[in-house]
Amino acid sequence: MNTLKDYIGKLNTLKLSNMYDNDFFLTWEKTDDELQAVWTVADALRCLRENNISTKVFDSGLGISLFRDNSTRTRFSFSSACNLLGLEVQDLDEGKSQIAHGETVRETANMISFMADVIGIRDDMYIGKGNTYMRNVSKAVREGNRDGVLEQRPTLVNLQCDIDHPTQCMADLLHVIHEFGGIKNLKGKKLAMSWAYSPSYGKPLSVPQGVIGLMTRMGMDVVLAHPEGYEVMPEVEEIAKNNAAKSGGSFRKTNNMADAFKDADIVYPKSWAPFAAMEKRTALYGDGDMDGIKKLEKELLAQNADHKDWACTEELMKTTKNGSALYLHCLPADISGVSCKEGEVDASVFDRYRVPLYKQASFKPYVIAAMIFLSKFNDPAALLKKLEDRGTRRIFE
Amino acid sequence: MNTLKDYIGKLNTLKLSNMYDNDFFLTWEKTDDELQAVWTVADALRCLRENNISTKVFDSGLGISLFRDNSTRTRFSFSSACNLLGLEVQDLDEGKSQIAHGETVRETANMISFMADVIGIRDDMYIGKGNTYMRNVSKAVREGNRDGVLEQRPTLVNLQCDIDHPTQCMADLLHVIHEFGGIKNLKGKKLAMSWAYSPSYGKPLSVPQGVIGLMTRMGMDVVLAHPEGYEVMPEVEEIAKNNAAKSGGSFRKTNNMADAFKDADIVYPKSWAPFAAMEKRTALYGDGDMDGIKKLEKELLAQNADHKDWACTEELMKTTKNGSALYLHCLPADISGVSCKEGEVDASVFDRYRVPLYKQASFKPYVIAAMIFLSKFNDPAALLKKLEDRGTRRIFE
Amino acid sequence: MNTLKDYIGKLNTLKLSNMYDNDFFLTWEKTDDELQAVWTVADALRCLRENNISTKVFDSGLGISLFRDNSTRTRFSFSSACNLLGLEVQDLDEGKSQIAHGETVRETANMISFMADVIGIRDDMYIGKGNTYMRNVSKAVREGNRDGVLEQRPTLVNLQCDIDHPTQCMADLLHVIHEFGGIKNLKGKKLAMSWAYSPSYGKPLSVPQGVIGLMTRMGMDVVLAHPEGYEVMPEVEEIAKNNAAKSGGSFRKTNNMADAFKDADIVYPKSWAPFAAMEKRTALYGDGDMDGIKKLEKELLAQNADHKDWACTEELMKTTKNGSALYLHCLPADISGVSCKEGEVDASVFDRYRVPLYKQASFKPYVIAAMIFLSKFNDPAALLKKLEDRGTRRIFE
Repeated sequence: MNTLKDYIGKLNTLKLSNMYDNDFFLTWEKTDDELQAVWTVADALRCLRENNISTKVFDSGLGISLFRDNSTRTRFSFSSACNLLGLEVQDLDEGKSQIAHGETVRETANMISFMADVIGIRDDMYIGKGNTYMRNVSKAVREGNRDGVLEQRPTLVNLQCDIDHPTQCMADLLHVIHEFGGIKNLKGKKLAMSWAYSPSYGKPLSVPQGVIGLMTRMGMDVVLAHPEGYEVMPEVEEIAKNNAAKSGGSFRKTNNMADAFKDADIVYPKSWAPFAAMEKRTALYGDGDMDGIKKLEKELLAQNADHKDWACTEELMKTTKNGSALYLHCLPADISGVSCKEGEVDASVFDRYRVPLYKQASFKPYVIAAMIFLSKFNDPAALLKKLEDRGTRRIFE
Repeated sequence: MNTLKDYIGKLNTLKLSNMYDNDFFLTWEKTDDELQAVWTVADALRCLRENNISTKVFDSGLGISLFRDNSTRTRFSFSSACNLLGLEVQDLDEGKSQIAHGETVRETANMISFMADVIGIRDDMYIGKGNTYMRNVSKAVREGNRDGVLEQRPTLVNLQCDIDHPTQCMADLLHVIHEFGGIKNLKGKKLAMSWAYSPSYGKPLSVPQGVIGLMTRMGMDVVLAHPEGYEVMPEVEEIAKNNAAKSGGSFRKTNNMADAFKDADIVYPKSWAPFAAMEKRTALYGDGDMDGIKKLEKELLAQNADHKDWACTEELMKTTKNGSALYLHCLPADISGVSCKEGEVDASVFDRYRVPLYKQASFKPYVIAAMIFLSKFNDPAALLKKLEDRGTRRIFE
Repeated sequence: MNTLKDYIGKLNTLKLSNMYDNDFFLTWEKTDDELQAVWTVADALRCLRENNISTKVFDSGLGISLFRDNSTRTRFSFSSACNLLGLEVQDLDEGKSQIAHGETVRETANMISFMADVIGIRDDMYIGKGNTYMRNVSKAVREGNRDGVLEQRPTLVNLQCDIDHPTQCMADLLHVIHEFGGIKNLKGKKLAMSWAYSPSYGKPLSVPQGVIGLMTRMGMDVVLAHPEGYEVMPEVEEIAKNNAAKSGGSFRKTNNMADAFKDADIVYPKSWAPFAAMEKRTALYGDGDMDGIKKLEKELLAQNADHKDWACTEELMKTTKNGSALYLHCLPADISGVSCKEGEVDASVFDRYRVPLYKQASFKPYVIAAMIFLSKFNDPAALLKKLEDRGTRRIFE
């Protein structure tokens, strides 16, 4: 375990001035230094908390959350991150608001932000919508701040959109870094991001896309595996290719799960909907064609059912490096015989990796807090030192 | 921009002892000094926050909110105000409570108030109900405090009732004061509070009533304009008349929107339901006559549609003082061609006033915070000075 | 009123090391010293708050609430307790979560607990379910903490289960202690825990069970009265019998309300569903037999209606000790002629006891806070002293 001094030292070597007063939409918009800053601050905040030192940098202020899809762990991660820094969460529940009757994004964004220091949004269901919505909110509050409407500009944190799930993938990678003993040890490691069968419908593409868009930057050999027809967004594949070229790793696709798992150091088997189907659904939804959506759902479930052999079984796990690849999942997983008859993963595999999986999830609150911290403070290294010097106890003693 | 010293000096000239340990139901129950105290404390709190000085006067304590109608901006304003002062918001969601089965107001009021310092209520849908309900809650917690049930008496803040919308109108007027450079400059200014067409049904009367009940106290010439049949509560018209007589301004009614807008310095065009119809609906609701309510709704929408020419158009705006009256709205507005086909205001008018409109809204959190502050502290001027001297930073630095 | 010094002195005489890092499931799992510690800390926290001394022992941290049944007073009591200690409440709303699709209790418990210091659960509807669920959550977070997933282990507080309602009954008894001037004065007092008629269906058994399981420890003569067929869980009756034997009190059952009320010092008349019916409902629910449940509901309401004479009337109250027994209720009560035609209690009786009833409820936030406090701090007496010495004001002055 490193000390706070190590983290501060590391931060001081990084160029991160562009993070100040900025948002976090997509990992591939950030430099390597900026990603490292997120992990370093996440570790530093955790180090302070574990030593019972308060990291409340806000005496008052709101963190606004907007979830356009059900959420447990991201919701609690966002709440935890806000609380850790001293912000109170106020949820924008669109069902209880007046937004329904035609209010513009620009207006809503300003109305909820008079005392907001951060806005976290999850909007992952419709292709071409979620990320665009977040950028519109961000633009609106930036203008509101410029025009003297808002005293401060709330930072926007993407809590999952149609393109990326940056808080998830950044947490995933921080977990991997800890498991492998540092970023430098990831070079040349093989990671399999694989589709897996699930009896449910329409899971977002943001996790596989986020994973290939991020992990390819670490010099790893990243393999994206899925049945034909389960393609992800071509733009993100391009990003993955370019990343791999730059980082000295590789990126390739396969329609063979066994090929991806063979000798893999890390596996991430997970269901998602085909990109083309998600596009189709977005169009049907735009037309309000509910019958069309139901029909599509049936087709997709039937299509899924053709690929029940895409599962993370004990047999497949044996083919990974030393039979003991690190198994990743964003949770909840569809566990065969537990949460469904046939699913993404064998119960015995899941059980063996339960503790590391939960640890993987534990990084998310800190990653979100780090994103806020880096956007709000111009000299994060100095501020961490000041927090240590202040020495306020998290729990009174 | 004034300094904190100016605000404190101003406060010291005002007689406001009656605000301590008191509620805020209707603006016309408050003296001129008391209204000025609210604006002065609102400005002072904003001044402190803008200078990164914490205004947390509560180390712990709850702010209870009860919304009996959908709300975004009032909900967030109340949350922001509570957070600014150090109170944590706890929402009373009647759907998740046991209140349904016949619990008395007196009991509920006490049960939620053991650690509550403020209760904010929005109850604006039924004539004769909302304000009465709030007074019953206030009476109950006053008794609870007297009888040793509650250690403190929570202040009641009216977040919109059937009669008035004091937090809205006080924010509106604070905005006007800032725009015109001080209260003294309002004398003789013409304000048009006008009905405007909206394709929606049953909007509360509390805003037009609140506006004529408050703005007539500033020596302004206030004109209330609406089609025949869209009368507001006669009691509030009486108040407006008396206010105007006392303040040296005037109050009159017209059924002609152009008449109201002619040479106006300030215009507030907004839809509302006819008082008589709201009374009828309240009675139908009391009888549980859902068919009657649906029929009434149809009639009212048809009645509205007869007055589509009541809109804040560019043409009308040109007839105001120098063609540039200050346009006010409590938001969200029904914008023609944006949020509806035909509505309250032309899109180009709304767009031109977007920034001042958002600024108008930005005063509400501070107005609510000021109402709480003035009810909780006997010497608010001294306390503001102590906050400055304490100098706790809102954002750590 | 005692002073803080008295409470600290009292605490120092109690053996309570087993409370540290432990949960609160059932009162009968706790020693007499441990129960006294809860009451003493509750009184001490109230004493500090009444003297405007902050009891925030957490600078940040979450209190998680999970209500599987509607709740007002327990919800607000839990919020108040968390706020009093410095924890922010985050509600786990299962409707807005992803839990529906087969996630295990173990996983959810860990996912919500990364920064949680306490979890409060209400799960009282199905026999054999609620308490078991809570223990599973507790086990999961204990393991999570052991395995390095959670930095801290959140304490579990039972906010009502199928067996006991410890925060309610501990608050009830603290009220009784205050009313009678100390625990020592309870010896030999007669308490009637009696069924009473209500026109509603399926009220939980946890209150009568909790009352007989707790009050029998005070050397009181506890009488459980109900019509035939309204038996409570036999295991809890056994506990009551054993408690009475040890404490020098008594426990007996009767099917005659008048017998129970005769010369009683304390009466607690309240409706509940028969244990056998609750068991049947649990089985029907397990089978998803909704028609069966509706049929059972009808039968139970008919069965209830046979016992409308079981009411706490003025006549019955006259037969109690000096005609002035202390009347207890967990609220809301079914008041004849107020919240229903015929109910548990005469309106005039309820009205006469309104203030003490509200006071009874006022102890619950403090009892919950005390349970958290005693679980989180190894030397609670020393910490109370430190809070007094720190002297932070709850309300700035």
